Amino acid sequence: SLHRIKASGLKLQLCTNETQATRENFVRKLRAMGFDISVAEVTAPAPAACRLLRERGLRPHLLVHDDLLPEFAGIDKTNPNCVVLGDAAENFTYANLNEAFRLLIGMEKPVLISLGKGRYYKETDGLKLDVGAYMKALEYACDVQAEVVGKPAKRFFESALAELGVPPEQAIMIGDDIVSDVGGAQQCGMRALQVRTGKFRPSDENHPEVKPDAYVNNLAEAVDIILQQL
Amino acid sequence: SLHRIKASGLKLQLCTNETQATRENFVRKLRAMGFDISVAEVTAPAPAACRLLRERGLRPHLLVHDDLLPEFAGIDKTNPNCVVLGDAAENFTYANLNEAFRLLIGMEKPVLISLGKGRYYKETDGLKLDVGAYMKALEYACDVQAEVVGKPAKRFFESALAELGVPPEQAIMIGDDIVSDVGGAQQCGMRALQVRTGKFRPSDENHPEVKPDAYVNNLAEAVDIILQQL
Repeated sequence: SLHRIKASGLKLQLCTNETQATRENFVRKLRAMGFDISVAEVTAPAPAACRLLRERGLRPHLLVHDDLLPEFAGIDKTNPNCVVLGDAAENFTYANLNEAFRLLIGMEKPVLISLGKGRYYKETDGLKLDVGAYMKALEYACDVQAEVVGKPAKRFFESALAELGVPPEQAIMIGDDIVSDVGGAQQCGMRALQVRTGKFRPSDENHPEVKPDAYVNNLAEAVDIILQQL
Repeated sequence: SLHRIKASGLKLQLCTNETQATRENFVRKLRAMGFDISVAEVTAPAPAACRLLRERGLRPHLLVHDDLLPEFAGIDKTNPNCVVLGDAAENFTYANLNEAFRLLIGMEKPVLISLGKGRYYKETDGLKLDVGAYMKALEYACDVQAEVVGKPAKRFFESALAELGVPPEQAIMIGDDIVSDVGGAQQCGMRALQVRTGKFRPSDENHPEVKPDAYVNNLAEAVDIILQQL
């Protein structure tokens, strides 16, 4: 399906909330599975956060996964004036959480940037708390509201559109998550298809707030429909 | 001041949110400082939780400080059907938080009991996240509301009154925390004095929701006033 999109001349951007690896590693994994994808074709929360940090002159203290650190290589991290939180996994230690908390509470106006707000996810060895849970802990302790830069944040989809170089009305989002993918893209002015694969649940079709522009059985069908209408 | 209260024939109960030590250890520390206090004169969140667990036939998984474990010695902890959260300090590891989360999310109706909802506290080596922050993390991940058994929970003050054997209108709370001490006691039908020591802040006197029955400069003055009115 990806190949057919590219062969048609359409531009393509993968939108992921992955924050346990750099885009380089993410792409390496996809290429090993046979997908013809380049780093420039991936929008992820960490680069979106870096853009925001540069725009606002923010110097982050990072509480993220070790494998994500290279994404922040070019960012000034001296004398931090904000905290960037990702899915830090084993780095979510008592000491690291207290350190991030102390920095935040010590700021005149605490700035907490979160790479996502997921509640939990599944790995081979079981369910794990996701970054959203730790975000809530720090929000409560410091009485602040985090700025979320992953899906479904509007600025995340704006980043993807900027990388594609197209306005929202010329882009279509295809995703399996009714809120993060479909709702986020629509709020940004894009149309959005929900695939009935992956995270899709039949109850999504009665979601109280989000209604996709159309449902498709899978990615191949989404591509069929898009190419037919060109 | 404590001695004068006892000598007058009034009953006394210390209400603490301490969850890093058993009442035995707490009392030992106070006695070493010269206070004539017995374990029976202390109301603390862990015994209040044990009462609630027994009443409702709940078998806890404990995520608490090691030093608090003896308080739960008589409680059936096999095949847990709830999670009890205290200020676990160094026990707040990534693995322990995931374990508590997995147990909760696996329950048909998750029951989370929290020994407090403090945001943070200060120790000699700096500020630390308190149990409330971890409570918020688990609440968000599992989409549940924790039941708080420490101050200012109504059931906490009801426990203290039951131990004293007096109705609320015959009891007076003296405390330095406008919300946890004064507000909690008043919601239970007690009168409450705020001392202008400890945590007291001048801004407390303009608190939007809680108004003490009176302010006193310190515990000695509170005792003077109470004994005068006997």
